[in-house]
Amino acid sequence: MLNPNVETFLGCDCGYEEAEAVLFGAPFDSTTSYRPGARFASRVMRAESYGLETYSPYLDRDLTDRKVFDSGDLELCFGDTEQVLLDIEARASTILEDGKLPVMIGGEHLVTLGAVRAAFAKYPDLHVIHFDAHTDLRDDYLGAKLSHAAVIRRAWELLGDGRIYQFGIRSGDRSEFQWAKEGHTALHPFDFEGLAQTMENLSDKPIYFTLDLDVLDPSIFPGTGTPEAGGVGFLDLLRAIRQVCKGRVVACDINELSPHYDQSGVSTAVACKVLRELLLSLRL
Amino acid sequence: MLNPNVETFLGCDCGYEEAEAVLFGAPFDSTTSYRPGARFASRVMRAESYGLETYSPYLDRDLTDRKVFDSGDLELCFGDTEQVLLDIEARASTILEDGKLPVMIGGEHLVTLGAVRAAFAKYPDLHVIHFDAHTDLRDDYLGAKLSHAAVIRRAWELLGDGRIYQFGIRSGDRSEFQWAKEGHTALHPFDFEGLAQTMENLSDKPIYFTLDLDVLDPSIFPGTGTPEAGGVGFLDLLRAIRQVCKGRVVACDINELSPHYDQSGVSTAVACKVLRELLLSLRL
Amino acid sequence: MLNPNVETFLGCDCGYEEAEAVLFGAPFDSTTSYRPGARFASRVMRAESYGLETYSPYLDRDLTDRKVFDSGDLELCFGDTEQVLLDIEARASTILEDGKLPVMIGGEHLVTLGAVRAAFAKYPDLHVIHFDAHTDLRDDYLGAKLSHAAVIRRAWELLGDGRIYQFGIRSGDRSEFQWAKEGHTALHPFDFEGLAQTMENLSDKPIYFTLDLDVLDPSIFPGTGTPEAGGVGFLDLLRAIRQVCKGRVVACDINELSPHYDQSGVSTAVACKVLRELLLSLRL
Amino acid sequence: MLNPNVETFLGCDCGYEEAEAVLFGAPFDSTTSYRPGARFASRVMRAESYGLETYSPYLDRDLTDRKVFDSGDLELCFGDTEQVLLDIEARASTILEDGKLPVMIGGEHLVTLGAVRAAFAKYPDLHVIHFDAHTDLRDDYLGAKLSHAAVIRRAWELLGDGRIYQFGIRSGDRSEFQWAKEGHTALHPFDFEGLAQTMENLSDKPIYFTLDLDVLDPSIFPGTGTPEAGGVGFLDLLRAIRQVCKGRVVACDINELSPHYDQSGVSTAVACKVLRELLLSLRL
Amino acid sequence: MLNPNVETFLGCDCGYEEAEAVLFGAPFDSTTSYRPGARFASRVMRAESYGLETYSPYLDRDLTDRKVFDSGDLELCFGDTEQVLLDIEARASTILEDGKLPVMIGGEHLVTLGAVRAAFAKYPDLHVIHFDAHTDLRDDYLGAKLSHAAVIRRAWELLGDGRIYQFGIRSGDRSEFQWAKEGHTALHPFDFEGLAQTMENLSDKPIYFTLDLDVLDPSIFPGTGTPEAGGVGFLDLLRAIRQVCKGRVVACDINELSPHYDQSGVSTAVACKVLRELLLSLRL
Amino acid sequence: MLNPNVETFLGCDCGYEEAEAVLFGAPFDSTTSYRPGARFASRVMRAESYGLETYSPYLDRDLTDRKVFDSGDLELCFGDTEQVLLDIEARASTILEDGKLPVMIGGEHLVTLGAVRAAFAKYPDLHVIHFDAHTDLRDDYLGAKLSHAAVIRRAWELLGDGRIYQFGIRSGDRSEFQWAKEGHTALHPFDFEGLAQTMENLSDKPIYFTLDLDVLDPSIFPGTGTPEAGGVGFLDLLRAIRQVCKGRVVACDINELSPHYDQSGVSTAVACKVLRELLLSLRL
Repeated sequence: MLNPNVETFLGCDCGYEEAEAVLFGAPFDSTTSYRPGARFASRVMRAESYGLETYSPYLDRDLTDRKVFDSGDLELCFGDTEQVLLDIEARASTILEDGKLPVMIGGEHLVTLGAVRAAFAKYPDLHVIHFDAHTDLRDDYLGAKLSHAAVIRRAWELLGDGRIYQFGIRSGDRSEFQWAKEGHTALHPFDFEGLAQTMENLSDKPIYFTLDLDVLDPSIFPGTGTPEAGGVGFLDLLRAIRQVCKGRVVACDINELSPHYDQSGVSTAVACKVLRELLLSLRL
Repeated sequence: MLNPNVETFLGCDCGYEEAEAVLFGAPFDSTTSYRPGARFASRVMRAESYGLETYSPYLDRDLTDRKVFDSGDLELCFGDTEQVLLDIEARASTILEDGKLPVMIGGEHLVTLGAVRAAFAKYPDLHVIHFDAHTDLRDDYLGAKLSHAAVIRRAWELLGDGRIYQFGIRSGDRSEFQWAKEGHTALHPFDFEGLAQTMENLSDKPIYFTLDLDVLDPSIFPGTGTPEAGGVGFLDLLRAIRQVCKGRVVACDINELSPHYDQSGVSTAVACKVLRELLLSLRL
Repeated sequence: MLNPNVETFLGCDCGYEEAEAVLFGAPFDSTTSYRPGARFASRVMRAESYGLETYSPYLDRDLTDRKVFDSGDLELCFGDTEQVLLDIEARASTILEDGKLPVMIGGEHLVTLGAVRAAFAKYPDLHVIHFDAHTDLRDDYLGAKLSHAAVIRRAWELLGDGRIYQFGIRSGDRSEFQWAKEGHTALHPFDFEGLAQTMENLSDKPIYFTLDLDVLDPSIFPGTGTPEAGGVGFLDLLRAIRQVCKGRVVACDINELSPHYDQSGVSTAVACKVLRELLLSLRL
Repeated sequence: MLNPNVETFLGCDCGYEEAEAVLFGAPFDSTTSYRPGARFASRVMRAESYGLETYSPYLDRDLTDRKVFDSGDLELCFGDTEQVLLDIEARASTILEDGKLPVMIGGEHLVTLGAVRAAFAKYPDLHVIHFDAHTDLRDDYLGAKLSHAAVIRRAWELLGDGRIYQFGIRSGDRSEFQWAKEGHTALHPFDFEGLAQTMENLSDKPIYFTLDLDVLDPSIFPGTGTPEAGGVGFLDLLRAIRQVCKGRVVACDINELSPHYDQSGVSTAVACKVLRELLLSLRL
Repeated sequence: MLNPNVETFLGCDCGYEEAEAVLFGAPFDSTTSYRPGARFASRVMRAESYGLETYSPYLDRDLTDRKVFDSGDLELCFGDTEQVLLDIEARASTILEDGKLPVMIGGEHLVTLGAVRAAFAKYPDLHVIHFDAHTDLRDDYLGAKLSHAAVIRRAWELLGDGRIYQFGIRSGDRSEFQWAKEGHTALHPFDFEGLAQTMENLSDKPIYFTLDLDVLDPSIFPGTGTPEAGGVGFLDLLRAIRQVCKGRVVACDINELSPHYDQSGVSTAVACKVLRELLLSLRL
Repeated sequence: MLNPNVETFLGCDCGYEEAEAVLFGAPFDSTTSYRPGARFASRVMRAESYGLETYSPYLDRDLTDRKVFDSGDLELCFGDTEQVLLDIEARASTILEDGKLPVMIGGEHLVTLGAVRAAFAKYPDLHVIHFDAHTDLRDDYLGAKLSHAAVIRRAWELLGDGRIYQFGIRSGDRSEFQWAKEGHTALHPFDFEGLAQTMENLSDKPIYFTLDLDVLDPSIFPGTGTPEAGGVGFLDLLRAIRQVCKGRVVACDINELSPHYDQSGVSTAVACKVLRELLLSLRL
């Protein structure tokens, strides 16, 4: 008798019950302002992850020693943004309630809002570490409150001042930078300077870690909706991920891979490797 | 003194006042179910139309003899579908009220609903000629009533039975084909058989003509969200357009070019040539 | 509790026990003489099949009414050709022994040899219907007996004269055409002329049906290792598949999709639609 | 002792002395009005021709039985158009003086003018058979007399009325079609209708045969500078080539493959197959 | 009443009269020696610039505060190089005579010669700052004096020794490097070392600043005719631009984006960001 | 009389007799585990090398002063791995026996084994310098001993402990790293640290230098079968090559360019430049 075809991200094949972290995909990109396609990220990452090794020589750890379950993709409705956020929140809540750590693969950055809502419901003292090229602090985008360009502003409405730490930022409207400077978020431009200090200050506060992959320089990550030159290097990002994961990350995501814009496949391979390193760095 | 840079679709450079037809772009694709990117169509078509001649040897007519004004693209909000439809309806209404014929370049197929609303407001006896690979008759798509897969169903809610004529259809859910057969629309599968008779029956009834370019075979039009093999040929389409335009077309659109999926540029060139032939065929 | 992520080809989700046909992928392309990449076909087809409907308006049948199980891909060793053929033969034999019909997704065309061996073991009176642009009748290719350019010659060694019927052939060495003419195979060049007569003659003989997708014209199927202009049309192919499936097909395959060579995705969409029509046409 | 690396188009490996036809490449595209890149055609065709067989089942002939020498590419100066035409004329003259038939691979269509000059010098009664999507009859293009859009007009200045026969034409300025109708050339629009009669009338007149590959439909030949939908099919073109080659072709060329615009490689494969069929059809 | 469709580079929408800087495109690439396509740069940059913000966090300045007019593209004749240079010179002269700063978007690098002629006519003491991967100092290229590989040599003929400062150079014929060393130009290989000193020495001398974007490493800028590994980084380039703009730049250009060779769009995004930073850095 | 078309890598046009180094291509990729296509490397590199200069400003040397012969590509049989290695060994042996230095262009990395065998036969004291992203130390890959993932392990079986020095390694199975640490090879992870010391220790020992180009970061070299982020920079690689070539390199290769995966052409340009610098650095 033959078995059905179970597809998981590289090495994430333990059972749900014993899993400590749970992957899920959120294939949604309806509010993308420039180039869509982030909907394809989770599916393509699973398919291409078999080109990667489970072992990390950076960390000397192996995914085969981790307990991660891949629960597949949500089926989300393009065009009904509020419902999409509810579906994401429900999945993240289930995982959190079962005492596991949700790891979401976007989709565009707006999907983060659904997962942040779930984490905030469980951890009222939630803080956010945000890696990105873009501020994402607009109050609205052409009138829409629910937009990938406004997602951190929406998170701020939930969490309030002093809870959000942004790194790598190098693009935004002038008013967004000014709004951040008024004390609403801690915006660290261009790179990861200040991250060590931030992590020390956060001590054991619960952290939602959202990683917009376009924080990377587009030379190594061209496959994204809004490529923005002048980004951080791959090894810099790995170091920063390890720093964040020394903190108490309770939920996290990576987002904004738009694989069709990089037909060399490198952007997908990079996203897979970042996810492997993230999964190996988390305190499970 | 130097002039600003006015960009129009090939040869569509008369003034608004004297224009008989008015182009506008509706760059929207948030409800696309499979592969997005139709938002880029109007902009790319304007840019690439200079590779085409204004003269048609098929019709022995020249765009330089036509009075068409290109009013550019609407600025639409990705993620707020209802507002998008209102914006489209407003633009189409303005053009209709000024006694001109609106010619819309989508975007995904849902944009048609905004323009149909405007045309229906002016012409309560409106009929729809629909060229497409897909039925677009779903009642909803994953719960969303406003979806490109449901656009003709929404138009039917406005117009009622016996007003919609579909040609070239070769894909859909079984229930959609059955629903059509119950008499709600006249669904002609696979090709343009029956079009001549339809046009004769319609006599001088006001027609909204919506042309989903994926009615073409993907060999000649791969650059679309949901390519569906077994489509009509390019010359077949030109003939069918000429047949429809002998009727009283009061508004029209072409849609679903997703140019990034065809990096040879052929799909864009085809869309431009179809638009030229449409503009030259309309009774202005 | 969340479920693992089962990926199947569109609508092929019944259990193994009740299945009448069983899919499996054979991702192998080591002997490809010109452009490799057919190894990616089965995986990409599963991923992209969700862009297709389960319902066929050509046949008025629906995959949801069929009992097909997708057993995923074999794990094959690039570079050890003989072992690969053994692995394929084993999988096909298991399915045949369980009284089900194996449907293999290549891979390059050599994979057919493994499945033909299995079918021949069960059906000594086996006949082969072969759709292809290429003769595949070489005795060897640069010395290699096991090559995708020699696969039908190898099948002939097993089955003998008068058992193999080739259609659509438009490329090969002069000596291959001559060898066929000597009575070894029935080679019908260029198109499907003679297929109806062939199927009538075969009556209820057991048939292995091997469909090299490059029989299609490269305008509609560019994503293949050796594109060969002058091929058959998509609707011609559907008709021919239906003709073959009126016979007693006991095993079959489609092969030679090399998806990376067609970045528009059309070739993959075509392969998926061909497979859907094949699954709906088989006498199950 | 090892040999140097001689690269020829498929099977064109006889010595110069015994050759009856001589290939050469003219990599030039400086006057291309829309999308350049035809400069890469000859080099890419040589490299990719090994994916093709030397045997033609259409003609039952084999390139290994033909005496064709490939003399490689001219080194042409981008930006100095007149010198380029002189260099081409010199190469074609050498081949003609040696009693052989020159077969040129463009390059953009303007290169034809150099070879026509050479052929006209030897054959004052020269006639031209011209396959193309475009008229190429402009008197000038933005002031330039030497432009690929004016090449047939320039040839006409040399040859005069009644010498040029155009087929497949479907694009041009209105004035170009009118100028042709005034009796300067015999312009057959859209397809090859009238070719049989033309060839009969030409009897044994010396013919320069220039084949702009964009006469093909862009579904099968997207890799060209100015793709123009509505073209002829591949098998139609093969038939037309055979008809022309029954006449007394004294020199010929194929041109306007721009391989980078078709990353599937199909356009290059098509060009190679067309060249093979042309070489096998010529009266050598 | 609807307005015509005015397309400008991001935020360059003031009127001509009040403008301090004036953009224009020079879409020409006929003398490109390797891969053409720079003709598409200006048009594609305008279209894609809407993916960029007007605000620069590097400079804390905003394009909305600058007075820049975009006068669109010149209509240049491919194949008539001398006329092209005259047309460019005329446009640049008009802008200079009106007391504004011309900012040209190439096209291949030869277009610089036309603008340098105009600037030299007004500023006989003109100096040139040249960023490039290539020397561009050939006396001729295959006999052509007007070639993109000879453009700086042509500028030197106008300006004489000691007026030209080259940075980032990492490719050229041995004789070109030797010729520079003889004192004709100040050639700084590989990077921007020496730029600070150069700018200090130039004091308030009038400067023509020509920026061949292939000075960037091809990892971040693959979309160019002759990619040359080992280039400068993006942030290095921004710093160097700011240094140059502290001097008295009287005219400038960026050139050699060939967008079709980078289908990820990153090269175009980089060119747009470089132009934004240049416009924000100029002393207006 | 016209000459045949000899194609060589840039400037490698001396006669075999006088040559000091001899190039040959080994177009084979049948054992590639992830993405094939390295078979195309040597052919594409020859074709594209004309976009490069023969002069190196890094070394102030010129290929026109070197005596290198390009003997073209071997004709290898896809699917018969052992025969392929014999053919490669034979070619390398011929060159070595003639007192020249073989420089092989792969192909996947397994081709190295054939050349190492030849070099080891002549130099029993052979050492290997290995640049790569991957360990290539597997004992087998899915059972195959002859796999590109096992090539260095096979070389070790020949040479024994202490003979192999690996640099830049950042991917592999955990057991491979452990096996290396047991003293079988000197594995230097991530970069070239330790290379200077290694070269000093090797003194004048005979060296086989194998350079898997995927040691480069995929930002600058995306066109390879298994891109692995975090690689070395281009200038770092040039420096390391110069260091190795100060030693006594008796044979060498570069491998794993898979050009179709980088349609910008940058990866090919990089490979050509690396080969130029290697040829200029060797002690000839």
